[in-house]
Amino acid sequence: MRAVTVAGIGKTAFGSFAGRSLRDLTVEAIGKCLADAGVTADEVGAFYLGNFAGPEFMGQSHLAPYVAGEAGLIGIPCTRFENACASSGSAFYHAYAAVSAGLVELALVAGVEKMTSQPGPKVTEILAEAGDTGGEGRAGATFPALFAMIARRHMYEFGTTREHLAAVAVKNHANGAKNVLAHLRKPITLEQALAGKPVCDPLTVYDCSLVSDGAAAVLLSAGKPGAVRVLGIAQASDYVALEQKRDITTLMANQVAARKAFAMAGLTAKDVDLLEVHDCFTIAEILALEDLGFVKKGEGGPATAAGYTALEGEKPVNTSGGLKSKGHPVGATGVGQICDLVIQMRGQAEPERQVKRREVGLAQNLGGSGATSVVTILGR
Amino acid sequence: MRAVTVAGIGKTAFGSFAGRSLRDLTVEAIGKCLADAGVTADEVGAFYLGNFAGPEFMGQSHLAPYVAGEAGLIGIPCTRFENACASSGSAFYHAYAAVSAGLVELALVAGVEKMTSQPGPKVTEILAEAGDTGGEGRAGATFPALFAMIARRHMYEFGTTREHLAAVAVKNHANGAKNVLAHLRKPITLEQALAGKPVCDPLTVYDCSLVSDGAAAVLLSAGKPGAVRVLGIAQASDYVALEQKRDITTLMANQVAARKAFAMAGLTAKDVDLLEVHDCFTIAEILALEDLGFVKKGEGGPATAAGYTALEGEKPVNTSGGLKSKGHPVGATGVGQICDLVIQMRGQAEPERQVKRREVGLAQNLGGSGATSVVTILGR
Repeated sequence: MRAVTVAGIGKTAFGSFAGRSLRDLTVEAIGKCLADAGVTADEVGAFYLGNFAGPEFMGQSHLAPYVAGEAGLIGIPCTRFENACASSGSAFYHAYAAVSAGLVELALVAGVEKMTSQPGPKVTEILAEAGDTGGEGRAGATFPALFAMIARRHMYEFGTTREHLAAVAVKNHANGAKNVLAHLRKPITLEQALAGKPVCDPLTVYDCSLVSDGAAAVLLSAGKPGAVRVLGIAQASDYVALEQKRDITTLMANQVAARKAFAMAGLTAKDVDLLEVHDCFTIAEILALEDLGFVKKGEGGPATAAGYTALEGEKPVNTSGGLKSKGHPVGATGVGQICDLVIQMRGQAEPERQVKRREVGLAQNLGGSGATSVVTILGR
Repeated sequence: MRAVTVAGIGKTAFGSFAGRSLRDLTVEAIGKCLADAGVTADEVGAFYLGNFAGPEFMGQSHLAPYVAGEAGLIGIPCTRFENACASSGSAFYHAYAAVSAGLVELALVAGVEKMTSQPGPKVTEILAEAGDTGGEGRAGATFPALFAMIARRHMYEFGTTREHLAAVAVKNHANGAKNVLAHLRKPITLEQALAGKPVCDPLTVYDCSLVSDGAAAVLLSAGKPGAVRVLGIAQASDYVALEQKRDITTLMANQVAARKAFAMAGLTAKDVDLLEVHDCFTIAEILALEDLGFVKKGEGGPATAAGYTALEGEKPVNTSGGLKSKGHPVGATGVGQICDLVIQMRGQAEPERQVKRREVGLAQNLGGSGATSVVTILGR
């Protein structure tokens, strides 16, 4: 296997963009990425597009060539990957494999979602298709309900409190407020988070990530120099239905993906300087800290409240603002996390949120309520 | 790159199955495939699922782990690939890459579509999402209209006739009538084909493939013995919109994919004994013959009418019955073609349709009106 570098990155702002199309957003991210890498479209050997639900949101499928043609990518393999919220994490995983194996020299990976063109209830319905629609879906459980059950069980098992959940939101809002590309740049207090409107008890609006439009792209190469290399990566699966999982407070796919990625990199959690994790709900960030081995089971909440994951803490988590504040255009999230890590690792973040220790970064991208997890470890 | 064998195959019947779910069909195909290979689910290293529109047809996304869990595949990378009608061709392409590169030992690839649960007009609408919905789609052009334009232009340029188109249908119906797993086992005469109800002039119902349910699976391995090996494979892209293509009577993605696959195999069209090509419409089979280099441009129709592609002809094409008669459960078609070639190459077809020369087979899987093409060459 060859060493693979991130030769370029490009992101649109995340937000609600009434006048922008899915294709337009992706082409912008691709253009920025190619410019960053100093590469032209005709040098790209394959195109990997992560997109969750373009057909349902926008009535357009066959999205990889649909986007690629407009970006000047013609005649090469162009493929859409769908794995719910881990769609572009999966695209990245397969692109990495192709480059490391020598099948492709320059692989372009993009992720995109255009969600705000649909009314809220329709968005919730489309998102629910990533769960077990014949079981939990038919019973009326949308994603906030699924993660509320996980949170409630975590509280029962480990004494996690609403203050712990709120601490995740407060931290991520504080970080996102400093990120010029974030969707919601609004710091909040613990009191505000606790007083948020209920969505599904114990989760309030401040525990839930945003419905956003946005796109992100990275260029992977075995030859071109890049400041950042892929040290380890793994993707793992679990049952889709919550009721079939061995334990809903420990996501097995997270554990398997992390174990494999760390083994590949020859590193442990101790070696990681900063993380971007999949905080689709605040409880999901707490699970990630635990499942990936950064804290013991049950200690994710207290560790967050104690500042362990803060910008100035021991392990800064979601310095971009995370899905909670930066935004969560579903299909863009996995590749967006890679971009966010690279921005920090290059020292290119806004000065007020730039971290000092930036040798090793870890991204964790979750699909559904944990049926897919992709863990990537980057190094300088 | 390591040599990759097809270690197992499994197919459901294609047809209209009111009582069967998408997952149920896929699990059946996977079970048959693993039994054929003599492999258990826990030996599989990665799962690649081709599916075009499960979310739109069935309201379920995140389909790879959703299917995999039920098939006993847990903890491994499970990913859905979407490239319109070439979805499982793309899944197969990426699985081949992973096995040949040594990243995975045993890769399971499946394809599935469950289409008949939606009323006809809704099916047509979902299929149209694989075209350029903002342009040709907004103008009212569904897929029969797009391929009717291609057919009309081919008639104008090369003198192709309705009899030539009908000859494709007559041949494929004759073959499909002999395939126990085919959807429509009904031989038709040239007169019947010509007198078919018009769909979009010059195409009649007999020029259009079927709306079907079905699933197919193959197991790829670098170690396990298999009767059939992958000799060459390539995927290529083109613009989605018909109006952006250089020439609508020559599908560039077909040409590029074929050229690369033949180069990889070190073979030419002369060496191929039988083909499964993507006859979503009769004109598409004629284009495939020409674009892949089996006949000169414009000679696909006359060659078909002269019996060149018949079961007893020089190059038997779609001995399974093709999409026209075997059926076209969109996401299953690419992997289904591989299964159909392997059945013939092993000598396991029904005696009345078993071909004699069966050393080299070629599959061509098309997405949309040619924005994706996957060409695979198999050898014994």
